[in-house]
Amino acid sequence: MKNFFFKKKTNIRINDILKLLKLKKIKNNIKINDIKDLDTASKNDITFFDSLKYQDSLNNTKSNIVISNKKFLKLIPKKLFVIEVNDVHLSIYSITSLFYPDASNDSFDSSTKNLKKNMFKKLKYGKNILIGNNVKIGNNCTIGHNSIIEKNVVIGDNCNIGNNVIIKNTIIGNNTNILDGAIVGKKGFGFYPGKNKNIRYPHIGAVIIGNDVEIGCNNTIDRGSLSNTIIGDGTFLDNQVHIAHNVKIGKNCIITGQVGFAGSSSIGNKVMIGGQAGISGHLTIGDNVKIGGGSGVIKNIPSNTKVMGYPAKNIRNFLKENKFND
Amino acid sequence: MKNFFFKKKTNIRINDILKLLKLKKIKNNIKINDIKDLDTASKNDITFFDSLKYQDSLNNTKSNIVISNKKFLKLIPKKLFVIEVNDVHLSIYSITSLFYPDASNDSFDSSTKNLKKNMFKKLKYGKNILIGNNVKIGNNCTIGHNSIIEKNVVIGDNCNIGNNVIIKNTIIGNNTNILDGAIVGKKGFGFYPGKNKNIRYPHIGAVIIGNDVEIGCNNTIDRGSLSNTIIGDGTFLDNQVHIAHNVKIGKNCIITGQVGFAGSSSIGNKVMIGGQAGISGHLTIGDNVKIGGGSGVIKNIPSNTKVMGYPAKNIRNFLKENKFND
Amino acid sequence: MKNFFFKKKTNIRINDILKLLKLKKIKNNIKINDIKDLDTASKNDITFFDSLKYQDSLNNTKSNIVISNKKFLKLIPKKLFVIEVNDVHLSIYSITSLFYPDASNDSFDSSTKNLKKNMFKKLKYGKNILIGNNVKIGNNCTIGHNSIIEKNVVIGDNCNIGNNVIIKNTIIGNNTNILDGAIVGKKGFGFYPGKNKNIRYPHIGAVIIGNDVEIGCNNTIDRGSLSNTIIGDGTFLDNQVHIAHNVKIGKNCIITGQVGFAGSSSIGNKVMIGGQAGISGHLTIGDNVKIGGGSGVIKNIPSNTKVMGYPAKNIRNFLKENKFND
Repeated sequence: MKNFFFKKKTNIRINDILKLLKLKKIKNNIKINDIKDLDTASKNDITFFDSLKYQDSLNNTKSNIVISNKKFLKLIPKKLFVIEVNDVHLSIYSITSLFYPDASNDSFDSSTKNLKKNMFKKLKYGKNILIGNNVKIGNNCTIGHNSIIEKNVVIGDNCNIGNNVIIKNTIIGNNTNILDGAIVGKKGFGFYPGKNKNIRYPHIGAVIIGNDVEIGCNNTIDRGSLSNTIIGDGTFLDNQVHIAHNVKIGKNCIITGQVGFAGSSSIGNKVMIGGQAGISGHLTIGDNVKIGGGSGVIKNIPSNTKVMGYPAKNIRNFLKENKFND
Repeated sequence: MKNFFFKKKTNIRINDILKLLKLKKIKNNIKINDIKDLDTASKNDITFFDSLKYQDSLNNTKSNIVISNKKFLKLIPKKLFVIEVNDVHLSIYSITSLFYPDASNDSFDSSTKNLKKNMFKKLKYGKNILIGNNVKIGNNCTIGHNSIIEKNVVIGDNCNIGNNVIIKNTIIGNNTNILDGAIVGKKGFGFYPGKNKNIRYPHIGAVIIGNDVEIGCNNTIDRGSLSNTIIGDGTFLDNQVHIAHNVKIGKNCIITGQVGFAGSSSIGNKVMIGGQAGISGHLTIGDNVKIGGGSGVIKNIPSNTKVMGYPAKNIRNFLKENKFND
Repeated sequence: MKNFFFKKKTNIRINDILKLLKLKKIKNNIKINDIKDLDTASKNDITFFDSLKYQDSLNNTKSNIVISNKKFLKLIPKKLFVIEVNDVHLSIYSITSLFYPDASNDSFDSSTKNLKKNMFKKLKYGKNILIGNNVKIGNNCTIGHNSIIEKNVVIGDNCNIGNNVIIKNTIIGNNTNILDGAIVGKKGFGFYPGKNKNIRYPHIGAVIIGNDVEIGCNNTIDRGSLSNTIIGDGTFLDNQVHIAHNVKIGKNCIITGQVGFAGSSSIGNKVMIGGQAGISGHLTIGDNVKIGGGSGVIKNIPSNTKVMGYPAKNIRNFLKENKFND
């Protein structure tokens, strides 16, 4: 998939990457197309392996070149060319910045202009609205006062954007509402602890929001780092929900107030999550799962399960354990 | 009580409602005044019963017409006329929308105008402020920069409204402060899961805020669905607090940062709640209750009790259980 | 240390204070310079003692005059002059307001003017920005749309301030980013429950933010009451984090989404805190501490420790206890 929003450098060769990583040049200086995760990488993309969780993806990747460290070397199929580094994340960061030099800078969009009559069809809008470059808005939408639609935003038909909303790098379907004060599409919290200093991480992903979605007041929904953050059709988010980078939420979910999602978790369809629950990073939650309010989910949950507690467990066990000790 | 803010249709008869629900007409086509909950409904209002929790209210309702489903039929006093439906909530939604066609639309208020000198008495105000229709502001108030007072707001004397505040459908007493970024009076998270799609719920209630109240930065306080959301005199809310629809909070409470209330709970007077605690929906918390930080309250709490934990229990038990396992 | 931001009355004598507290005058009507906590008070400052936690500070204070109540009288070194009151906090509140009459009023800053060209060097800025009195901004900074820099703010070089940001009473280092919707420097939640009414507390402290810091979207960071709120160099805060008054956070910490800090806690360097964790007030967290997501920390944590749970305990114990009861 092409990156809609961030301009990619197109003339990067493997020796450019090896030089950046302070490694030796090789003879066969092939062109590298992009940096992607194991699942989405193609033949000419470079990819990376840094956790046992992704062994299956590693075995099935279409990429030919994988960055990894000593610890994982023997797990890597022999047909792959391995670039061994000390710090996989730092290397990904550097290479991504090489391909996408604009993806780390997240300061305000200076391309915005005041919204004026006839810029969009049948748009009903408030006062003091700013619109950036590369913004498309469908028919019959509304945009509230003081809202800022920064660059790289596509909004479908019949959408209502509230007051004081900020959006960038986001694609929104039809019949979707973004309520007051929501902030959608900012760079995620992609840091990792360096020896002397925390290092910022580039974010080349977008936020993809489906049809018939509701995004609550003061929500914060970060765009993806290498993949996208996705919210499926018919899903409703209450106020003060936080969604970190790369999270995928399915269709027709109901997420109540102050719920938080750490990065890269994947949530099924028709999932209901009670207020203030937290979902750890890199988890898979099945379809029709019900998660009780206040729960802390720290492992995968199969479909059609009700859980509650911290850490979250089967709700019958939670209620049984807590019955008599009042 | 008359609904201050939403215009009600006045010529609805019971056969209009039966038709809407795809049920048979009846002979005695009486006029129906409104749709209300069991406690507040009068003789000519239609009401509904869908949970054993409200058996007492059912027995004492002044309404003559109740919507319910098969499961509850035998609990309903014989003197009441019952409209049996499959899905009580969906029916309430439809009927409320029939009475109040404007209560589901919560897009920005296009009636707002820039605040100008002499619109209100002795008002000290910042830049770029918008004021909607049907807004009253008392003496000696302040309103900060970029704030939006949408339609249907009454503010008393000596109130301070911060910067970037958004208010609609709200009545505020005297000497009350609403701090920066707070969003008050939006439609609550009134959805319920339909078979194929989540259904939005109309909200015809208001937010009623007393005297000497403090509403913290970035709070979100939703208006009620069929009743009001109420915050009593002298109650202080810290930053990032979320209050769902229909919650009633008593007088002189102290609610610290990031606390969340699910819908329709009722909190007594002089209640203190520690940071990040969550209160489930439809609960009753007594007077002088102290709830420890991080607690998850999932059942009623009698007056003069200290609780902590998830689920919240007597604080002595919580501390005893957690003493030796460090 | 001089108070940068709040103007102090300079001619207060001890009998002014005794009169305010409705106590008898004394003969030696010495001049009092300020009111400070036990650790920071000098010879001519008045201080206060109201908790056994601060016994060490009491024994080492440089102040000669301490406010306390009956309960603590025998713990106070004899060389100190004691002002005995019923309610220590109410007395501090009154005395602080005597010294700093402006520190309780936190309504919007009416001194702000629209940001114009050439007000600051090499500043790149958006639309509709307001700047208050006593604001300094370094070189090569950016400020996003609709942001409000109220009075008493110092910003270093190479800082990026997002959209819809509100800052007051804050000192910021170099290379620091404040993301969209953050509110920094407001009065903390300094109330305490009076007999009939909650009493507001003056806040004469600032927020001090170091170099290379990142403050996430919709964060709320309150200024200190009598001391400052401090965020050390290289520390990163994710979205929706809440930091109460007087909290001190060390260097190179990583604080993820929706974490909350109650007042006056002190956090070491290189501390990592997972999403939605809460830190109670008046605690000391050491260096290199790792706190799992969702934890509720209610006691001090020594350096180099990993904790998780509610209440937070050693992470090995937490995982062991929760292993088999799924």
